Amino acid sequence: MPVVNIPEVSYPYNGLNMVPQMGWDNWNAFGCSVSESLLLNTAKKIVDLGLRDLGYEYIVLDDCWSSGRNSSGYLVADSAKFPSGMKYVADQIHSLGLKFGIYSSAGVMTCARYEGSLGNEWKDARLWASWGIDYLKYDNCFNQGQSGTPKISFDRYSVMSQALKSTGRPILYTLCNWGNDDPYDWAQTIANSGRMSGDISDTFNKPDARCPCTEAVGCPWPGFHCSVMNILNKMPAIQSRTMSGYFNDMDMLEVGNGGQSDSEYVVHFSMWAMNASPLLMGTNVETLSAADLAILSNPAIISINQDPSASAAVRKWRYFVDPDETGEGEISLWTRGLSNGDMIVALLNAGNTDRIMNTTLSEIFTGRRTTSTFLSPKEVQATWDLYDLWGNRMTNDEAAAIINGTATNWNNNTRYNATVKSYQDGTRDNDAALLGKHIGSISPSETLTAEVARHSVVMYRLRSQGSRMRDEL
Amino acid sequence: MPVVNIPEVSYPYNGLNMVPQMGWDNWNAFGCSVSESLLLNTAKKIVDLGLRDLGYEYIVLDDCWSSGRNSSGYLVADSAKFPSGMKYVADQIHSLGLKFGIYSSAGVMTCARYEGSLGNEWKDARLWASWGIDYLKYDNCFNQGQSGTPKISFDRYSVMSQALKSTGRPILYTLCNWGNDDPYDWAQTIANSGRMSGDISDTFNKPDARCPCTEAVGCPWPGFHCSVMNILNKMPAIQSRTMSGYFNDMDMLEVGNGGQSDSEYVVHFSMWAMNASPLLMGTNVETLSAADLAILSNPAIISINQDPSASAAVRKWRYFVDPDETGEGEISLWTRGLSNGDMIVALLNAGNTDRIMNTTLSEIFTGRRTTSTFLSPKEVQATWDLYDLWGNRMTNDEAAAIINGTATNWNNNTRYNATVKSYQDGTRDNDAALLGKHIGSISPSETLTAEVARHSVVMYRLRSQGSRMRDEL
Amino acid sequence: MPVVNIPEVSYPYNGLNMVPQMGWDNWNAFGCSVSESLLLNTAKKIVDLGLRDLGYEYIVLDDCWSSGRNSSGYLVADSAKFPSGMKYVADQIHSLGLKFGIYSSAGVMTCARYEGSLGNEWKDARLWASWGIDYLKYDNCFNQGQSGTPKISFDRYSVMSQALKSTGRPILYTLCNWGNDDPYDWAQTIANSGRMSGDISDTFNKPDARCPCTEAVGCPWPGFHCSVMNILNKMPAIQSRTMSGYFNDMDMLEVGNGGQSDSEYVVHFSMWAMNASPLLMGTNVETLSAADLAILSNPAIISINQDPSASAAVRKWRYFVDPDETGEGEISLWTRGLSNGDMIVALLNAGNTDRIMNTTLSEIFTGRRTTSTFLSPKEVQATWDLYDLWGNRMTNDEAAAIINGTATNWNNNTRYNATVKSYQDGTRDNDAALLGKHIGSISPSETLTAEVARHSVVMYRLRSQGSRMRDEL
Amino acid sequence: MPVVNIPEVSYPYNGLNMVPQMGWDNWNAFGCSVSESLLLNTAKKIVDLGLRDLGYEYIVLDDCWSSGRNSSGYLVADSAKFPSGMKYVADQIHSLGLKFGIYSSAGVMTCARYEGSLGNEWKDARLWASWGIDYLKYDNCFNQGQSGTPKISFDRYSVMSQALKSTGRPILYTLCNWGNDDPYDWAQTIANSGRMSGDISDTFNKPDARCPCTEAVGCPWPGFHCSVMNILNKMPAIQSRTMSGYFNDMDMLEVGNGGQSDSEYVVHFSMWAMNASPLLMGTNVETLSAADLAILSNPAIISINQDPSASAAVRKWRYFVDPDETGEGEISLWTRGLSNGDMIVALLNAGNTDRIMNTTLSEIFTGRRTTSTFLSPKEVQATWDLYDLWGNRMTNDEAAAIINGTATNWNNNTRYNATVKSYQDGTRDNDAALLGKHIGSISPSETLTAEVARHSVVMYRLRSQGSRMRDEL
Repeated sequence: MPVVNIPEVSYPYNGLNMVPQMGWDNWNAFGCSVSESLLLNTAKKIVDLGLRDLGYEYIVLDDCWSSGRNSSGYLVADSAKFPSGMKYVADQIHSLGLKFGIYSSAGVMTCARYEGSLGNEWKDARLWASWGIDYLKYDNCFNQGQSGTPKISFDRYSVMSQALKSTGRPILYTLCNWGNDDPYDWAQTIANSGRMSGDISDTFNKPDARCPCTEAVGCPWPGFHCSVMNILNKMPAIQSRTMSGYFNDMDMLEVGNGGQSDSEYVVHFSMWAMNASPLLMGTNVETLSAADLAILSNPAIISINQDPSASAAVRKWRYFVDPDETGEGEISLWTRGLSNGDMIVALLNAGNTDRIMNTTLSEIFTGRRTTSTFLSPKEVQATWDLYDLWGNRMTNDEAAAIINGTATNWNNNTRYNATVKSYQDGTRDNDAALLGKHIGSISPSETLTAEVARHSVVMYRLRSQGSRMRDEL
Repeated sequence: MPVVNIPEVSYPYNGLNMVPQMGWDNWNAFGCSVSESLLLNTAKKIVDLGLRDLGYEYIVLDDCWSSGRNSSGYLVADSAKFPSGMKYVADQIHSLGLKFGIYSSAGVMTCARYEGSLGNEWKDARLWASWGIDYLKYDNCFNQGQSGTPKISFDRYSVMSQALKSTGRPILYTLCNWGNDDPYDWAQTIANSGRMSGDISDTFNKPDARCPCTEAVGCPWPGFHCSVMNILNKMPAIQSRTMSGYFNDMDMLEVGNGGQSDSEYVVHFSMWAMNASPLLMGTNVETLSAADLAILSNPAIISINQDPSASAAVRKWRYFVDPDETGEGEISLWTRGLSNGDMIVALLNAGNTDRIMNTTLSEIFTGRRTTSTFLSPKEVQATWDLYDLWGNRMTNDEAAAIINGTATNWNNNTRYNATVKSYQDGTRDNDAALLGKHIGSISPSETLTAEVARHSVVMYRLRSQGSRMRDEL
Repeated sequence: MPVVNIPEVSYPYNGLNMVPQMGWDNWNAFGCSVSESLLLNTAKKIVDLGLRDLGYEYIVLDDCWSSGRNSSGYLVADSAKFPSGMKYVADQIHSLGLKFGIYSSAGVMTCARYEGSLGNEWKDARLWASWGIDYLKYDNCFNQGQSGTPKISFDRYSVMSQALKSTGRPILYTLCNWGNDDPYDWAQTIANSGRMSGDISDTFNKPDARCPCTEAVGCPWPGFHCSVMNILNKMPAIQSRTMSGYFNDMDMLEVGNGGQSDSEYVVHFSMWAMNASPLLMGTNVETLSAADLAILSNPAIISINQDPSASAAVRKWRYFVDPDETGEGEISLWTRGLSNGDMIVALLNAGNTDRIMNTTLSEIFTGRRTTSTFLSPKEVQATWDLYDLWGNRMTNDEAAAIINGTATNWNNNTRYNATVKSYQDGTRDNDAALLGKHIGSISPSETLTAEVARHSVVMYRLRSQGSRMRDEL
Repeated sequence: MPVVNIPEVSYPYNGLNMVPQMGWDNWNAFGCSVSESLLLNTAKKIVDLGLRDLGYEYIVLDDCWSSGRNSSGYLVADSAKFPSGMKYVADQIHSLGLKFGIYSSAGVMTCARYEGSLGNEWKDARLWASWGIDYLKYDNCFNQGQSGTPKISFDRYSVMSQALKSTGRPILYTLCNWGNDDPYDWAQTIANSGRMSGDISDTFNKPDARCPCTEAVGCPWPGFHCSVMNILNKMPAIQSRTMSGYFNDMDMLEVGNGGQSDSEYVVHFSMWAMNASPLLMGTNVETLSAADLAILSNPAIISINQDPSASAAVRKWRYFVDPDETGEGEISLWTRGLSNGDMIVALLNAGNTDRIMNTTLSEIFTGRRTTSTFLSPKEVQATWDLYDLWGNRMTNDEAAAIINGTATNWNNNTRYNATVKSYQDGTRDNDAALLGKHIGSISPSETLTAEVARHSVVMYRLRSQGSRMRDEL
């Protein structure tokens, strides 16, 4: 009898998103102020700044784009905001080598109280496919109380999943239900990513009564106004629920929006990347500063995010230390093994003072396992080259030149074009921009030590010097 | 194709209550001792005291009014309590320019064990409409276990919502399910307000074993005997769920019932108003003291509540301080932006001693956003006029004159008639009664400082001196 | 149109149990060792000791009585244990002026793994009625996962409720689902009492890992091996859910089983009585000690329990004090108003040392309300006679004489016959046995002070000296 | 009328597993690296090492064995891994006197993303029966959100229960749903064991963010990477839910996998045995060290596990003491009564230093009860012989000889063959290997004292010297 192959089971549900999606979404910076020109100008800028070639592919139009339904029950784009129509916008975006995302809610209204899709899933999916939509962000507002158990939420979100699939068009399907009813436990067979917390706000670690939980699981009220550190610390418990084709979405990036310091944005971007979160820029790209471009363009960080291992980081330890004015203070060690055997190590200082932090190979490799068996302690006994992943950060002058269109040289240490060569190939070829800056090595008896400034992170890639030590997947 | 407009979606579900309802409900002061004369005498007094013209519009008859169902299954008003019948009462109330509310429970009995409406929703709604009822308070007792997920509760409450709508009569629909199953997450499309906590008691901050939760969300047992401070501190987490047409109901006012000091009642009234809670007086209006009338009649506070922004306050910070004999002690800063760009600031001292409290423009405006984008820091850099919202509080002599019918002068600083000019128009016109007492200004480099007595609040309205700084909605 | 009266609604669902049931259940002392002779000998002894005439009316046969189902699907009594058959047992019990209760589980097995009633409710109810059963204790084991929301549990327990009612025989229906899914919120319309915690064990305050919760509401695992103090402190939050016809069942008494000191049993019995818990003796009555008979026979305490007010006590305050070897230590003040205006006050010392405790009229009467309005402070301004409810406790000699059948005098201070005169009439007539020992009075300016030994309680009845101060129901 | 006997009710659901299952599962050591040769070589070794005759009976093939479904919808074994087919493997295992277990998930995929059985239960059960499968481990991954209440989970797992039963083949059915929705409360009528926590990792007490709960009940996220001590301390609350035919499964053993010290593995094995957990070896048996064989082969410990009492241990007390580098430190006393009246006592030191621990007969026997009544205090007044259950532990030399096939003598103190004589018979006959080493006795006035090294346990069997003191079941 012929054997039916595994890919025919429902995971991954549509074959898309084997590494986390990247792109841009207008909400964090523009909210409801959406328009054809905003999307197209931004798309153009994303190409010009080299962001498309770094992987930022999806231009996502968030809430507030419709003017209701027509007499046939189909959604209508707001003609004042989108005078040329959505198909035109899609075509333009496609012509730039980018993809186009749209937004709706699994409720009777969107969060900004426009028409929602609950009850109109099949009609809406067909319409979006006809426009050439490549991506749906699907929110959770005004859901008529259809929540309370995983089953109730799954059933609601699964209708749109089937509707999208039935269109025949590949459409990335991203849940935005804020982690309600634990989507990390059931959404992998119906979606490509899923939010796991309340909405982000542009703040590093400030607690806010509107974001009452410190854990994702068992949280009765995800809320919003969640800080970067709040969202980050909700990830470790659900670390195993990130996988190729489905990623836990830590929400859109705030880099560039002005609420955090440069080093805080570096933490934000680094930890999102390391946790395999979707990377959706959430700022005004047309007015992006040189420093922020340098952060968003760091290929050594992006290549972690896009690694085929498709897994989230492990928080090896966390200690509470001197709090800042928000009352918060902590340090932590995070690790993530990549598919070629390299290891990423993050020493995160969210305390109120600069400090020396350290770790050892034993700490880094303890508890790591492949799908077959525990790795032998040979990793702890090997010597590893150390690469500082922010060591080659683009200077502000270089970034400014890109912004101003005056860049003349292509710096192989700082810039990368993934359209030409994939991150995987670049890593294999030891591309300097992906490896970061070589700063030494660490042998078994040594301690890995780093000065880590207040509210910043040191990110290392460790590569074994000797025999290749990697997972045989 | 014709475009169907947004108002046709189910939000707001019936077009009523774009700002919070105001009125009077007999329960807190009279419990089951209801009668035709109580309602009509109270209604008359509400008109005479100028309360109707301040916005107190609904006369709500609470539990214990029926004598069961007749052989056709229709509810029958208790003829001993309501000898002239409910239609007569409604007509009389309407003739005074007021509206008439009634009570039932989404269960087989009301909380006082009279006939409930579960299973009789359509019949009861038609009857009430025939009587001329304008408002329904719908309780949660004896619900046959129909709770446990948002879906179960939504489905139960939604039957009455449809029944009321089907009558064709505009009937304000208010849920009283104590926050069970998170109505703030699903009730906006089926109701006009919803209780978010256990029942209030006339106490400022005394913990009570019968009100075991300190947060609304995830509370397994809302209970009753909740203090003013307990209910208040359940609001911040659900701040985003207040909106035009649906308000989180902090329960009826206790002002006048004797369990709190004058300054505690001022806190109670101010914070209810600022959080866009419905304002239902809950005392014996016929014996209202001068001081309590002065509180309930402060137009500068009411105008916040009735602002079209229709949003709840943000608790910017909260610190635990010296406890009083109840074991509780805290101070907090609350802000709320109004639709014309003014900002309300409350410095609340629920500690056991008088103290100096202070804040800055930076603290006040941090984290504020419009629906389109973050406000620029220009607000932090502006100079703002300061108005003390209790600075023009009516004197007891003035209030006593109103009560005694001996008032001869109309004091433009203390009194307001919203029947003649809406709060919105009055605010635009800088009506003194709405602005409060001008006490100075605050510039960017300054600290806003106030002496705040034990168990009291200082309420300010900030108005920009320079160019108009407001949300463009 | 004729008006249908309130009693026809589903509350109280069968008109029984307007005050808490009293009786005896074999489980705590005998577990599965049940037999015809145990029941009949015990019933006889209950009559002989005067316990029947104190109100202990139901003889409840707990688990392990059946030998399965016959071919028609009817339960069969174990003929080895009940050679004369259940109808005979019922007849004998009835002939003693007592009533007969039986046990089953709302699952496919009982907790001791005998046949359960889930799916056989109507058949089992008919059988029990045919035997002359007056009472059903209905457990929760092996319920096929039919729990998780109030709705699921309500629906399961409601089947037996309908089945019992349909028999036409008055059968008291008591839920034993350990408080799962909050029966205190939904069972009043389908049952006469409902357990609100995990199983009791014969220990005063020892924490046990098998009884992990300290609150009834929101408890994910009621467990068993719960101490007297653990169960007691789960009551205040649900105080409002006790009412005529439905009582929160704190589980069967352990008095007499040897695990606690005399004063601890006094606390246990007093607090169960004061909280309107069913009072089911759970010991071997045939070997009852004089001291334990004196506790179980105190009419001044029983009369509180049987008061028509049918309400639970309010815990006015609770402080943690010096712990004993279990790690627990606390003191608390409890009050309960009776229907004739008397007030019961309990000063409970569960700390590790004897101490002076005190309270005031203000503390006792604060927050008390009738169904119509707050009581005026006149109560605080009145003078009250004080009766010590354990002041007339029967001496061990007197109790021993009753046990030995050698009692010759009837002591009007210690003994009471409620068959002859109801508790309500006795209270009205100032029967000495019900009032307790007059020990003085308390006036407004005074402090009520008592020496309260380690692990004991002082119980007072307060009766107003002046004009009658009582609830007008 | 003929009486239907108790065994016909649904408990135990299939008559299997009256004592906990024992065997081996490949997952902990081999993960997805499964093959015919691994299973057959391991089975052979288990026989050779005497492990089969100690009771390790089931050879369980875990995840990753299929290559999908054929066109008729039947699962197909991966022919590369299992070239001779599953029936052949089953036959070979059976011919060794062992039984064969297989794995699937109550979801659309297994946890390693192979074909799951949700929706194919009857087809899969028939196939497995046709192969000669004796055991199913049934996981919880990718369950399409079918969880959230006990009812939803019960209904899902019950389908496979019925399917397995319908095959007519006795198949042990073990749930692996990590304790979600409290299987210990509902699975006894549909399964033979059920996991009660997140996955074990080979660590003694290290907290891990991926295993966030410290209690089994009410845990919103069982997770994985749970330590031995974490899982152990989740057992006491559900102690009563272990019973003949259904055991709470603490997950497979890590003994031999290298992550813990010898004394930590002794704790792990002892406490699993004492809590009536299934004992599935989870290591590479072919490379088992002498020391680990000595642990896994201790008949004095295994006989506790296999005692017909079939009950879990009671944690009598737990204190937090000096923490080690993980931040954890505790000591505890555990007891378990056996069916012949013997008592097992464990003094567990999970603190960071060696210490003297002690207990008394009063502490050991307090709170113990039979199914009929409380045991009289005669146990506290008796004198008990003390046996050290690790006193006769096989030396490493002796174990090495077994491993090397050079063992010539059979040591009656250390070795046992339960195939020849059951544990129950051996215990009755005072077999030295089952009793352990006699080290003295304890009388009522004495304190039982033991030196307990850091991270280790002292295990005693107490046997009454005088008249037989045992439960009369």
